[in-house]
Amino acid sequence: MGEQVKFVLGEQDIPTHWVNLMADIASPDNPPLPPLHPGTKQPAGPEDLAPLFPMALILQEVSAEPLIEIPDQVRDAYRLWRPTPLYRARRLERALDTPAHIYYKYEGVSPAGSHKPNTAVAQAYENAQAGIRKLTTETGAGQWGSSLAFACQLFGLECEVWMVGSSYDQKPYRRSMMQTWGATVHRSPSDLTNAGRQQAAHPTGSLGIAISEAVEVAAQHDDTNYSLGSVLNHVLLHQTVIGQEAIAQLEMAGEYPDTVIACVGGGSNFGGLTFPFIRNTIRNGVETTFIAAEPAACPTLTRGVYAYDFGDTVGLTPLMPMYTLGHDFVPPPVHAGGLRYHGDSPLVSGLVRNGLVTPRAYRQNETFAAAVQFAHTEGIIPAPEPAHAIKATIDEALAAREAGEARTILFGLCGHGNFDLSAYDAYLAGELEDPEFSQDELDAALQSLPEAPALT
Amino acid sequence: MGEQVKFVLGEQDIPTHWVNLMADIASPDNPPLPPLHPGTKQPAGPEDLAPLFPMALILQEVSAEPLIEIPDQVRDAYRLWRPTPLYRARRLERALDTPAHIYYKYEGVSPAGSHKPNTAVAQAYENAQAGIRKLTTETGAGQWGSSLAFACQLFGLECEVWMVGSSYDQKPYRRSMMQTWGATVHRSPSDLTNAGRQQAAHPTGSLGIAISEAVEVAAQHDDTNYSLGSVLNHVLLHQTVIGQEAIAQLEMAGEYPDTVIACVGGGSNFGGLTFPFIRNTIRNGVETTFIAAEPAACPTLTRGVYAYDFGDTVGLTPLMPMYTLGHDFVPPPVHAGGLRYHGDSPLVSGLVRNGLVTPRAYRQNETFAAAVQFAHTEGIIPAPEPAHAIKATIDEALAAREAGEARTILFGLCGHGNFDLSAYDAYLAGELEDPEFSQDELDAALQSLPEAPALT
Repeated sequence: MGEQVKFVLGEQDIPTHWVNLMADIASPDNPPLPPLHPGTKQPAGPEDLAPLFPMALILQEVSAEPLIEIPDQVRDAYRLWRPTPLYRARRLERALDTPAHIYYKYEGVSPAGSHKPNTAVAQAYENAQAGIRKLTTETGAGQWGSSLAFACQLFGLECEVWMVGSSYDQKPYRRSMMQTWGATVHRSPSDLTNAGRQQAAHPTGSLGIAISEAVEVAAQHDDTNYSLGSVLNHVLLHQTVIGQEAIAQLEMAGEYPDTVIACVGGGSNFGGLTFPFIRNTIRNGVETTFIAAEPAACPTLTRGVYAYDFGDTVGLTPLMPMYTLGHDFVPPPVHAGGLRYHGDSPLVSGLVRNGLVTPRAYRQNETFAAAVQFAHTEGIIPAPEPAHAIKATIDEALAAREAGEARTILFGLCGHGNFDLSAYDAYLAGELEDPEFSQDELDAALQSLPEAPALT
Repeated sequence: MGEQVKFVLGEQDIPTHWVNLMADIASPDNPPLPPLHPGTKQPAGPEDLAPLFPMALILQEVSAEPLIEIPDQVRDAYRLWRPTPLYRARRLERALDTPAHIYYKYEGVSPAGSHKPNTAVAQAYENAQAGIRKLTTETGAGQWGSSLAFACQLFGLECEVWMVGSSYDQKPYRRSMMQTWGATVHRSPSDLTNAGRQQAAHPTGSLGIAISEAVEVAAQHDDTNYSLGSVLNHVLLHQTVIGQEAIAQLEMAGEYPDTVIACVGGGSNFGGLTFPFIRNTIRNGVETTFIAAEPAACPTLTRGVYAYDFGDTVGLTPLMPMYTLGHDFVPPPVHAGGLRYHGDSPLVSGLVRNGLVTPRAYRQNETFAAAVQFAHTEGIIPAPEPAHAIKATIDEALAAREAGEARTILFGLCGHGNFDLSAYDAYLAGELEDPEFSQDELDAALQSLPEAPALT
């Protein structure tokens, strides 16, 4: 048998703590930029979040502790799929004829098929502990909604999901998955909320409308909370089990990455993989390149502006300091639904702003070409979102070949593509659209930026 | 953290040999019942198989060796997903309030999502070694076709799949999966073969017609072979990596099963899990109950007869000694497409005949109820096929509760249900059919049994 390709850990190796990178970035002398209340534009405090989130998660959101202990019951749930495998992509390396060592951390082994359950079980647990009976959320293509449905079932919570209308019609199987795990799924806009009724003229819906519906219902009921699948600090820190496991597995391989690559939408997959490595760079000066791969059709980090903006389209959420394309921006319908977000996590945005993270944007067709090359060599058919990370990885591996350097590259394979095969169909038939957008369109979208303090 | 639920092995623990149970069952004094030539009804020898299979696989098919070494390149391919995890279903145990210990071996982590790649890579490798350029095969719902497409891509072979017409229309995503791995997929009946043209009046197709098309093309070209996903001895032995790993993982847990349960269609999943345990029973007298779970809609082992019959519907293949419902039998369209086969592996049939294996049949709705209970407790949404094994397992666990006995039960979770969610939709909506069939219908189907020596 050839050289090792798979690096596995036992359940005793599931991390005991989450990595809170805020502790490395902010300090009492250098506090993090606060979110702003959407009405007053004044700094929003924990109390502003209390109608939607349990206090345990709010405390995680604003915590300055470097490590946050993972509750036993959450680790116990993690054991249903964690630790996830780390692979060395030797077949891809051979196909690229590169001296680079390519590793990937595969999160598609979770029951929902992506990294999303890492935070879903943590959020469901804390809400159950707080006596909450039901969680509401929105979902686009369904990755997040199905993960929360799964987590709510484990912890005995009801789960109510508003699914973007066009996805509800086009992706019935993600809806079936949520229902199999016991969730109630509504087509958004629905007639169950004021927000939905107001938006009835937009029957295909949007993530922004779905957020508004879920938030409205959660705010109306004391026993109901809202749950978000990315963007916020506490969501990103829940995902850091990914990077911590990857460090341990790379140690088994006797390696440390020169480059770490992940796709970025709201930022939770990117933060989950990279933050433990970025902590090492910040604290110990380890030189590592961090690449955030995003779609050219929604180039938040590469073409957006760094400004305060709303998290949702209709402007109900606090304003957050982040790279944004303007909250009115509706990205073209690329298949990487998880990357179609006008803004980005404030934490990840700050890291891009200060130069620790390099963003790169890729067109849809080149990412699918990379995904097919990956499927042909490594077997797994990736979701369209991590296909962006694969494209960046292949570019880096070819650059290493040009340079004649045996660089070590790690990327995050955050989910499988079992529910995205119609996109592969279109790609293989040469019928996949390849949207970009013009500077004029970008300028128009940025007109929607709200009045708020400028960021430097 | 609670007690251990996941038992993982490293790639160094992938078995080095396949278990050939034929060596335990047959001997020079007690030779296996031979297949019969479809025309002459005389015993068919290796030379009759040579137009379709490479000699290495034919030798495995008729081997009397107890262990057959796994080629290095096949083990190397296995490392892309093997060893697969063994879980203790502690959450299901708690939900059932049973003293039984329930374990499951999960094969859904393979790129194609089931156990099928275990034999696909072995077959693709041996054909590539023999200088073959292309493999043909048939597929129903697409599990087998996608596994062979994946394997052919790894070993540089072309792959041509005839997919049953009704499935081709209803399950486009399995087709997309095959195409993503580079296979050519035809809707069967096609106009590319005599068999297909002759059957043009049956546009929805059948597995029997698709087999005929794939066999016809393979037989016509020297550089093209045919590949089968179950039934034959060499296919079953390739799957015994499952049971061997399970034995090692149960040893980690300090357990040996009282009962081993797997679903059975053609028999490769059942044989793969159970044969290493059955060898232990035969050689060492270890008392273990083996349960083969099948659909009441296609009750080959529970209501069929033990007789020589054709492997395909049109009668082109050798006659095999097996339990059969008659090769004309067309099972009702239950969602467990992998279990809709009129016959069964001769090896598994012989074990049922001599009482080592106990068959049980289950209705479609009760298997989906079991599958949903499993998804609610353990997370993974199972394919409809292993849902039959889950139903049997729950029955056994409840019987253990009645008896007050801490029995140890192992079952095979041979695939995930990501491509079967429309069936869950129907079940949750109360619209799932629950077909059985009458003794009259069975008697009519058995009229198709060919003239052949009777079996005792």
